[in-house]
Amino acid sequence: MDETLEPLRGDLRIYQKRQGFRFGLDAVLLAAHAGPRPGEAVCDLCTGSGVVPLLLADSPADSLCGLELQQDYADMAARSVALCGLSGRIDIRQGDLRHIGAHYPAGAFRLVTVNPPYRRAGAGLLSGRTDVDVARAELTCTLEQVCAAAAHLLPEGGRLVLVHRPERLADLFSALRAEGLEPKRLRFVQKTAGAAPSLLLLQARRGGAAGLSVCAPLLLEDADGRQSDELRRIYKGEQVWN
Amino acid sequence: MDETLEPLRGDLRIYQKRQGFRFGLDAVLLAAHAGPRPGEAVCDLCTGSGVVPLLLADSPADSLCGLELQQDYADMAARSVALCGLSGRIDIRQGDLRHIGAHYPAGAFRLVTVNPPYRRAGAGLLSGRTDVDVARAELTCTLEQVCAAAAHLLPEGGRLVLVHRPERLADLFSALRAEGLEPKRLRFVQKTAGAAPSLLLLQARRGGAAGLSVCAPLLLEDADGRQSDELRRIYKGEQVWN
Repeated sequence: MDETLEPLRGDLRIYQKRQGFRFGLDAVLLAAHAGPRPGEAVCDLCTGSGVVPLLLADSPADSLCGLELQQDYADMAARSVALCGLSGRIDIRQGDLRHIGAHYPAGAFRLVTVNPPYRRAGAGLLSGRTDVDVARAELTCTLEQVCAAAAHLLPEGGRLVLVHRPERLADLFSALRAEGLEPKRLRFVQKTAGAAPSLLLLQARRGGAAGLSVCAPLLLEDADGRQSDELRRIYKGEQVWN
Repeated sequence: MDETLEPLRGDLRIYQKRQGFRFGLDAVLLAAHAGPRPGEAVCDLCTGSGVVPLLLADSPADSLCGLELQQDYADMAARSVALCGLSGRIDIRQGDLRHIGAHYPAGAFRLVTVNPPYRRAGAGLLSGRTDVDVARAELTCTLEQVCAAAAHLLPEGGRLVLVHRPERLADLFSALRAEGLEPKRLRFVQKTAGAAPSLLLLQARRGGAAGLSVCAPLLLEDADGRQSDELRRIYKGEQVWN
């Protein structure tokens, strides 16, 4: 079978495709900056293997949902959830975020997380493996469609937290504001203090007032080239944004 | 008289108001990231004391202009230019960027620099001293009006380089794109590697394609708390972006 079963954190285990799209550091960082609060309903779009809701299973969130377009990934995520004994806590559904209203009612979630495809369709080469390309490039959903789906799911004041590439920042702000989602917190992820950022984490608020807090960057390595203390704490499950 | 004469760099000297608005590190960083190329005409909006064109006097730019709303600051800047023997190279004019067409024809400059007022009108307290408040808050020109003026001055492919506060980043991108100015390079300025940024430097291009390069941050201090090597080079006149 084209799957492996891997340890995630604590007792959590997760199925992953052996050859297909596998989650990376970005998903782990997204979960660490999601900051679910007690009683909140959380929805993770483009959930893939379900890694983000799994990493948030022990958070104070009231309930966790994950929506995934590709049927085989949604099935795999649901099997990971069942294996971890979390079927009562995490609900994975197959569905298309371009028709979000068919899956969830408006304003149903206080927090939406998403690790969307990063690349514009047509920018860069594709791998030729459809499931991987759908996860990496905007073939089946654009940034604008991701933001529209999040705006549907969130009530006024609800939060969207996402991870993306720095080169898309201007596109991201445009797409968010077009849907009434105001960028509130931004954090860049850099290998070292002197490196250009490779990722960004952003929190937006539906109907929020203008005014962005740019946080100190997350450094992945310390000055000696070892994993930074903060990254180590994140791998252990620390929540950064509350 | 309410003025002091201060050394700037090399043989350059500059008049500054004793009590009024005085330029800061932001203007020095703006000049260092302006990157004028040989033969280019450069216009500095909100030029104030004229510090940015003065710092660019020895650049390969063909000509340098500065536009300032407040008559006494424009006069003072022109006197600094004359004192430095640069009257043939730097042209300072009093004028309102909200009526930019009255001062310069469309597309007249390949590079526009600006250190605009940072604060939204109504956000935060005013000093009560009009000249200072006009320089700090959007009392006489908004970010949108600054971008509109820059768009007038630049031909297709021309560059705008500005310095601003991180909390205005989303407003800045919105205002730029509304005028067809695409954010191309972004750099944050931080005191230390672990600090949140206090300023940002941005280069936008008129009619540019989407795609932003976020550079490694400029650190003002090294790990020992001393002025960083890069800041020292900037004070000496190094150009960072070319």
